[in-house]
Amino acid sequence: MEKKQQIPVGNFILVINAGSSSLKFAVYQCQTIKREYSGLIKNIGKEFSSLKINDANSVAVSVKKAVYQNIDEAASGIISWLKTIQSKCFISSVGYRLVQGGPHHRSPEVITDELLEDLTKFIFLAPNHLPDELALIKKFRSAFPDLTHVACFDTNFHRDMPDQAKYYALPEKFKGQGLIRYGFHGLSYEYIMDKLDRNFAYINQKKIIIAHLGSGSSMAAVSFGKCIDTTMGVSPIGGLVMSTRSGDLDPGAILFMLKQSKMTVEELDNVLSHESGMKAIAGTGNMEELLKNASFDKRAEAAVNLFCCQAKKFIGALAAALGGLDILIFTGGVGENSPQIRERICADMDFMGVKLDRLRNQDTQKIISCQSSKVSIMVFETNEERMIALHTKKIGSHLAEDEMALNASVNP
Amino acid sequence: MEKKQQIPVGNFILVINAGSSSLKFAVYQCQTIKREYSGLIKNIGKEFSSLKINDANSVAVSVKKAVYQNIDEAASGIISWLKTIQSKCFISSVGYRLVQGGPHHRSPEVITDELLEDLTKFIFLAPNHLPDELALIKKFRSAFPDLTHVACFDTNFHRDMPDQAKYYALPEKFKGQGLIRYGFHGLSYEYIMDKLDRNFAYINQKKIIIAHLGSGSSMAAVSFGKCIDTTMGVSPIGGLVMSTRSGDLDPGAILFMLKQSKMTVEELDNVLSHESGMKAIAGTGNMEELLKNASFDKRAEAAVNLFCCQAKKFIGALAAALGGLDILIFTGGVGENSPQIRERICADMDFMGVKLDRLRNQDTQKIISCQSSKVSIMVFETNEERMIALHTKKIGSHLAEDEMALNASVNP
Repeated sequence: MEKKQQIPVGNFILVINAGSSSLKFAVYQCQTIKREYSGLIKNIGKEFSSLKINDANSVAVSVKKAVYQNIDEAASGIISWLKTIQSKCFISSVGYRLVQGGPHHRSPEVITDELLEDLTKFIFLAPNHLPDELALIKKFRSAFPDLTHVACFDTNFHRDMPDQAKYYALPEKFKGQGLIRYGFHGLSYEYIMDKLDRNFAYINQKKIIIAHLGSGSSMAAVSFGKCIDTTMGVSPIGGLVMSTRSGDLDPGAILFMLKQSKMTVEELDNVLSHESGMKAIAGTGNMEELLKNASFDKRAEAAVNLFCCQAKKFIGALAAALGGLDILIFTGGVGENSPQIRERICADMDFMGVKLDRLRNQDTQKIISCQSSKVSIMVFETNEERMIALHTKKIGSHLAEDEMALNASVNP
Repeated sequence: MEKKQQIPVGNFILVINAGSSSLKFAVYQCQTIKREYSGLIKNIGKEFSSLKINDANSVAVSVKKAVYQNIDEAASGIISWLKTIQSKCFISSVGYRLVQGGPHHRSPEVITDELLEDLTKFIFLAPNHLPDELALIKKFRSAFPDLTHVACFDTNFHRDMPDQAKYYALPEKFKGQGLIRYGFHGLSYEYIMDKLDRNFAYINQKKIIIAHLGSGSSMAAVSFGKCIDTTMGVSPIGGLVMSTRSGDLDPGAILFMLKQSKMTVEELDNVLSHESGMKAIAGTGNMEELLKNASFDKRAEAAVNLFCCQAKKFIGALAAALGGLDILIFTGGVGENSPQIRERICADMDFMGVKLDRLRNQDTQKIISCQSSKVSIMVFETNEERMIALHTKKIGSHLAEDEMALNASVNP
């Protein structure tokens, strides 16, 4: 027992989750994984950026309108605030969400200089996300050099997909360069599976589709507790049509764009990532706005319709990959908050046992299927930050155990 | 009645169907659409090209080993043979399969100089197919200048798909340039639907998926007699994984290839069209060979497995688009001739009412589902040439009627 106390295990875990123009963070009690604070910096690089921090009871403890020109300034804002609570909250480790770590970094890992150097090689796999994520890590590591920093990859959940889901039917040499199907939203899926596991018996014998629908959307198919397929591939552009991303395409469509428009690869990437999807059809990819306008704006209705039709098709495809379906879960900003979208996606899916209860769906109850539905349809709030905290705690405990084992062998 | 006889309606229709290295043709009796002759030139441009012509009883009437260097020489071979039967068979019209005619040419059309000029503008949409097809038309038109020549487009069947299946979620300007989802194998689908219509009652109230599986593969979803979705889009590279084509991809995969390999657009097109699909996994895209080797060659097994898994997923997706499934039809070289592939595709699809009868499937009976299967599973031999003949006859009759009407109005 004495030895255990020698190890500097702190009381809190800091979680950092960077979006494209936002930065989320949270502070968790290490023992209980109870969230003590959660913060969000919005509109980074825009005129009206802001910082808001809530306590455990969702009461704002800090609200600041400030111009954060870039992710570095946003990080400085968080670091300054963290210093003000330092006397109360002793942070022992920091967990980060990383969208991509290449083929060899999937499980959560302690961040070292070597890891960071290695990750730099895979920036080309996620050029829109990884540079900011790595910059953030460097910033926090130099602000808190004595803490354990842990990288949590969004691609971990899909690491053991079977070959037919993992590899492209493209020449072998590309696979060697890292062109495989990674899948994303893994931390969200891990969180949902963890929650299911704690709440329902026999969950590991079920065939499950989790639909993470937001401005970026994907779905994962889970059989016997393992992810066997997912809609996104090597990049977050693939799979479903999204707010501004195209989703999967006939490669001929891309050849067409390249031939007809003489775009550079960078321009093409920008069009497919930021100027496609529902935005290309209706001028905006914001689902709330689209649903508001759909009754009088044909283009908005067409965008919503396309999104829902594609979601139906991917549910059908993943159910076929699973050989059936027991549970369908909606999560993510749109999945959690839009009864209308859930209803449209589930319409006419009776043939595969999917029957939504309209009243339950309107109330956004946890279970929204009819009693007679073969498939249980559920709505779960996702929480990537909590999953990162859990991973970070686990890695911290392993480190502690390793150190104990080392101490035990040195002082037997 | 006298007037009808004035119109030079001949007795036979010639059908021309060009593949990538083959040229099929057939001669049909105009009245009955009975096939009188069918011919095939194989391995055009290769060392061992050959011409084989069968009569109505599938007895060879001409077999010739000759080197046909290109499609022009192959056409000359056919024209020479046609001249030898000219005294017996009076050909009145020639029907051609065209893979693509752009957004404005979908229905069968009489070929004029204007049409040919217009079609030239859409070569960029099917650069691997259309140039040869147009060259063939020119060759046969100049050999038979007095006949009616009719273009039958593979994109006709899908012309009225709903918006969510017809349009890409890509910037509007590309749609204006012709970047829409056309669909292919339309003549095969039309033939199957025509045959179903003549053999089964209430077929226009059924939800049907037709799986045309060959070295090129696609599927079409038909509801109330109309095609509502299909797997191929603007090009024949999209949809399912095929022998040498990649099928649909995460656009990120293509961006990866462009960035990492510095390929030109032409090289990329070649890789996606000719060096991907099952060939990329197993070294060959020939299904017969793959099935032969699958028991001892892991790569062959992986290729077959990927093909079947993807076929399952697209059946699930199209069933979801249809809101259910009543009939699943296999056709095309692989669909008609490979019980093993049909069995693997239908395995574990019970959840959506698909139950194959293994014995019936081995015998390649017309109906291969179990009695208890909610979905009727069928195998149909396709016949694109017959469909072209039917279209060509119809167009010829319209022309005749127009001429009759003209004569009637001129000589009331």
